[in-house]
Amino acid sequence: MSSVFAVIQPVPVAKGTSEYEAHRDNIVREQFTNKVPASLLLPSSVITNPPRDVTAVPRECGLLTQDEIAITETYDATALAAAIRTKKLTSVAVTTAFAKRAIIAHQLSCCLTEWFLDEALEQAHAYDDHLARTGTVVGPLHGVPVSIKEHVQMAGHFSADGMLATRTLDEADSHIVSILRGMGAVFYCKTTQPQAIMHLETVGPYGRTLNPHNINLSAGGSSGGEAALIALRGSVLGVGTDIGGSIRCPAGFCGIYGFKPTAHYMPMQGLSHVGMSPAELTILATCGPMAASLRDMDMFMKGVLQTKPFLKEPSLVPLPWKGSAVESEQTAPVQPLKIGFMMSDGAIQPQPPVVRALEWAKARLSAAGGVEVKPFAPYGTAEAVRNIRKAYWPDGGAGLKAQLEKIGEPVEKLTQWIIQDAEGPPGTWEDIFRMRLERDGFRARFSQHWSEQDVDVVICPVYAGPACAHNTAFDWNYTALWNYVDYPGLVFPTPVKALKKGSKEEQYVSTEVLSEEDARVRKLWDEGDFEGAPVNLQIVARRFHDNELFDAVASIRDVLGLA
Amino acid sequence: MSSVFAVIQPVPVAKGTSEYEAHRDNIVREQFTNKVPASLLLPSSVITNPPRDVTAVPRECGLLTQDEIAITETYDATALAAAIRTKKLTSVAVTTAFAKRAIIAHQLSCCLTEWFLDEALEQAHAYDDHLARTGTVVGPLHGVPVSIKEHVQMAGHFSADGMLATRTLDEADSHIVSILRGMGAVFYCKTTQPQAIMHLETVGPYGRTLNPHNINLSAGGSSGGEAALIALRGSVLGVGTDIGGSIRCPAGFCGIYGFKPTAHYMPMQGLSHVGMSPAELTILATCGPMAASLRDMDMFMKGVLQTKPFLKEPSLVPLPWKGSAVESEQTAPVQPLKIGFMMSDGAIQPQPPVVRALEWAKARLSAAGGVEVKPFAPYGTAEAVRNIRKAYWPDGGAGLKAQLEKIGEPVEKLTQWIIQDAEGPPGTWEDIFRMRLERDGFRARFSQHWSEQDVDVVICPVYAGPACAHNTAFDWNYTALWNYVDYPGLVFPTPVKALKKGSKEEQYVSTEVLSEEDARVRKLWDEGDFEGAPVNLQIVARRFHDNELFDAVASIRDVLGLA
Repeated sequence: MSSVFAVIQPVPVAKGTSEYEAHRDNIVREQFTNKVPASLLLPSSVITNPPRDVTAVPRECGLLTQDEIAITETYDATALAAAIRTKKLTSVAVTTAFAKRAIIAHQLSCCLTEWFLDEALEQAHAYDDHLARTGTVVGPLHGVPVSIKEHVQMAGHFSADGMLATRTLDEADSHIVSILRGMGAVFYCKTTQPQAIMHLETVGPYGRTLNPHNINLSAGGSSGGEAALIALRGSVLGVGTDIGGSIRCPAGFCGIYGFKPTAHYMPMQGLSHVGMSPAELTILATCGPMAASLRDMDMFMKGVLQTKPFLKEPSLVPLPWKGSAVESEQTAPVQPLKIGFMMSDGAIQPQPPVVRALEWAKARLSAAGGVEVKPFAPYGTAEAVRNIRKAYWPDGGAGLKAQLEKIGEPVEKLTQWIIQDAEGPPGTWEDIFRMRLERDGFRARFSQHWSEQDVDVVICPVYAGPACAHNTAFDWNYTALWNYVDYPGLVFPTPVKALKKGSKEEQYVSTEVLSEEDARVRKLWDEGDFEGAPVNLQIVARRFHDNELFDAVASIRDVLGLA
Repeated sequence: MSSVFAVIQPVPVAKGTSEYEAHRDNIVREQFTNKVPASLLLPSSVITNPPRDVTAVPRECGLLTQDEIAITETYDATALAAAIRTKKLTSVAVTTAFAKRAIIAHQLSCCLTEWFLDEALEQAHAYDDHLARTGTVVGPLHGVPVSIKEHVQMAGHFSADGMLATRTLDEADSHIVSILRGMGAVFYCKTTQPQAIMHLETVGPYGRTLNPHNINLSAGGSSGGEAALIALRGSVLGVGTDIGGSIRCPAGFCGIYGFKPTAHYMPMQGLSHVGMSPAELTILATCGPMAASLRDMDMFMKGVLQTKPFLKEPSLVPLPWKGSAVESEQTAPVQPLKIGFMMSDGAIQPQPPVVRALEWAKARLSAAGGVEVKPFAPYGTAEAVRNIRKAYWPDGGAGLKAQLEKIGEPVEKLTQWIIQDAEGPPGTWEDIFRMRLERDGFRARFSQHWSEQDVDVVICPVYAGPACAHNTAFDWNYTALWNYVDYPGLVFPTPVKALKKGSKEEQYVSTEVLSEEDARVRKLWDEGDFEGAPVNLQIVARRFHDNELFDAVASIRDVLGLA
C-alpha cells in the first residue's frame, strides 16, 4: 500500500497476483493519492517510525487548527447537532474538521476505503444554507458528519461484498444511508472491512486496519475501519454491521460504543449486492451504530426507526423505538434491575484485563441502589459457535473462493480460518433445514435457560481478551453466541486498560484449561503484549428487547460513568 | 368409513392398501365406534339420505334438549365465558351441549378426528368447582369449550402431520393448547385436516369433510373440520392453522369468522412433530382463531398474546395485542379509513356471488361516513402463487411420498395437484436461497405497490368463488398471495349466498378470460351447483399490522353487520 499512499502497516497483508496488486494500487491511487492534498499528509517519519499509541497524533501533528481539535474532541453527534442547530458551529466547519481528522486517522490506522471532502462540503454548505434560509433543521443529524462502512451502499461511491471482484460503483443509496441523509447526515468517507467481511480483524485490499491505542494490535472486525476512525475522533458516529461480532468486537477493541440491534429491526436493503448473504438463510446480519456516546446510539436508533423503515422493507418488524431513555434521564424502574454477570462462557476463560473489567463493573453495580447483581451461568457457547461457523457458509465457501480467484485476490489467513469448518461440497436443502432446526432448538433452550437464571440483562465480555495481536482473532465466542440467539448487544468502555506485559495484575487467576480454544487464548496471552488496549464490556438483553436494553443501560449509566 | 362409524359421505375418498384401510378403520373404531353412545347417533336415514343443507339437523334431530340448543345457538365464546363467570350457566352444561352437538356435527360433516366427552366433563367440573370455591375464574375462557385442529398437539391425544404414518399419541400440549388451557378452555374434540395438511379441501384418513350448507360442496381446507364444526355450532371457537389459506378458505366456505395473523406472532411449538415444515424455510405457517364472532377472535388473540408466548418461543416477535378495539366500541379514527377494494387478482375473475358480495360491501361502505373507498389494483398474484407452490416442497415432495408409501396411504387428487409444480429432485441450498431472494424481492415490490395504492386495508375475495365442489379447490390465489407477503387476513360473513343454478344474478359479467386458471374456474362455475353456499369476504392489512387490521374492522363492524 505504501507504494501508492503512505499509511502505517506494521504487519503486511497477503500478496495476490501481480494483476490483483496492480488493480489494488490503482484503486488506492484513485481514492487517496490523487485526492488527498499534500497539506493533509503526515510527515513520513510518523509513518515509518510510528509511536505504538497513535491516538495523540491527530492533536499533535499540527495539521488541525485549535478549533478543529476542539470540534473533533469535545462533542458527540448529539452535541454537534445542537451546536449546528443553534448556529454555534456551521456544518462546513464541523465537516471540514472531521474530514481532515479522518484522513489523518487513515494514515495512522488504514481505516478508510474512500474519502471525499469536496462532496461532503457541498452537502455541508447546503445544510448551512437551509438553516440560514428557513431557520429549521432537516432532522436530528442536520449537518453532522457520519462515517459509513464500505459495503453499505451510497450513491456515487464504491461498495464491495468483501471481495475486490464485487466492488461496484453504486447508483443508489442503501436504505440506511438514505434515511441518515434524510436525518441530515453529511457523508465524507467510507471505512474498511476485511476480506469476506468475515474476520474479527480488518484486513483486505486497502491494507490492515490498526488499533489506534496500540498499532501492534487489531482494530477488531469486521467494522474495524469505523472503530479505529471513531477512536481517533475522525468520526463520532458511524454505521457498522454485525453477523458474528462485527460491530461489537471492533468497538470493544478500540474502546468506543457500539450496538448490534436484534435482526429485522434496522434497514438492510443495499447492504449486499445480491440482496442478502447466503449465511442469512440461518444467521441474520444487522446494521447498527458505532459511536462516541451512548446517547448518540439512542438518537441514531430513534431517528432511523421513526422513519418506519418497515414500510419500504417488509422484512422488518415494526417495533417502535421508545427512545430518549438515555437522553431524558429517566429514573430506573421501581423493580430492581436484575443484572446477570457471565464471567466466562464456559468454553474460553477471559484474559486478565477482561476479568478486571468485569469485577470493576460488578463492584460498582453491587454498591449501587436499584440493581440486583447475580451470576449468570454460561449455556452452550461451544455448541452455538460450532453451529454458526457452519451456518455462515451453506455453499462450503465455494462462492467466496470463486470471487477471490476471479481476480487473483489472495486468501487471507483469517478467511481460511473462518471457512474451514464449512469447507466441502455445497449443502442441500436438507442441510439448511437441519441448521434451522438446530438453531431454533438452541434458541428455545437458551431462552429457557435465561428465564431460569431470572435476569433482565446480562453483562459479559466482548471478546476473550482486549484487542488481540494481528491475525489472531480466532475466537468469536463472546459475540457470535448472541448472533446465534439474535439477542441485542451493546458494548461500552470501562476505565480498565491492559497493563504492561508481565504485570502481576495480568496473570490468569484460574489455571483450569477449559478447552482447546481456551488453551490457545492463554498461549496468545502469554506471547502477546497488550499494553494500552482498552477493555469494553458487553450488555445483552432478550431478542427484540432492544428498548428494554437501552432502558437498563440508561439506569446504570451514571454508576458505570458512561458518556 | 361407514362400515365402522356412520357419517355422510357423498363422494368417496381414495382407497389405500388393505393394510392401510384396516388401520384406518381401527382408528375410527377406537375414536368413535367405541366411544359414542347410541343415544347420540343420528337415525341412519339421515346418513343415507341426507338433506343438501344439514345445518338445521342438530336443532331438529331430537338429540339435544331445548337448553342445549339455546346454549349452542345463542352464545359466542365471549358470551359463554360471561354466562359461566356469572353462574348463569355451568361449564358442565356448556361442555355437554357442545360435545353432544359436535358428535352430531361429525355424523353430518365428518369434521372430527377425536371426541372425548368424559375428559371434557372432568375439566368442566374442575372449572365449576374452582369458581364455586374461589369465586374467581382462571382466565377469559374459564369453562368454555374450544375445538382444536388435529395436528395441533394436545397431551393424551393424537396428532398427525398430515400423513397417517406420522400419527402420534402426544405426551405434552403444544404451546397454543397450553396457553388456551391456562385461559380456562375445555377441550373436547380434535378436528379434521386433509392429507399433507395442504389442500383447500379437507379429505384424509377420517373421510371427507362436508360443507354443512351444501354437502355437495367442500368445507374448504385445511382447517375444514373446524369450519364445518363451527358452522354447525358444535363449537364457537377453535384453533386453525394457515400457510396458504387454511384458516381463511374453510372459514369462508362455511360462513364463519377466521383470522390468519402475521407469522411469528402466535405460538407455533408443537404444531409439527419435526419442529417445522420444510416449507417454512420460505413460507411461514401460523395458527389463528376460527370463530362465531369477531369479538371472540379479538379475545382469543388478546388472551394468547398476554401470556407473552415469545418468552418460551424466541422466534416470536413481542408485538403486544392492543386488543379490545372490537369489544370497546372504539370509534373510528379521525382520519378516514382508506379501504381498497381488490375486485379481482388479475389472474382469476371471482365467480358471480363473490362479485355480488364485494359490490354489497362496497356500497355499504361507500354510503358510510369515516371511510374512503377506493380501488386496489391487483399486483403479481400469478407470480406469487407460482413461487409459493414451489416453495412449499423444497424436497420435491419426496418426504410426503415416503410417509404415504410407508403404510400404503393413497395419494389424494388434491395432494398430487399441490405438489406437481415442485416434483423433481430435492433442492440444493441454492434453490432455497433463490426462493428466499425471490420472496423478499416480491415482498418489497408488493409493499411499494401497496404504498402507491395508498390504502390502510384491502377488501378482497377469500376464494375465486363460494365453496367449490369436492376435489376442485385448485386455485389458492386469493389466500396464498397474502401468505407469500405474510400479511394478516381476516374473513367475515356477508349476507350474500350463492343462488339457484342458472339464476340471472349468477352470470359472469365480464367475458374476458384472464388465464388458463380463469378458464378452469369459469368452467367449474358452469358445471357446478352452489346453491346455499355462503359468501365471505377477506380484509387484509400490511405485515405485522394485525392490531391496525382489527381496529379497522371494528370501525366498520356495524356498517357490515358483523357479529
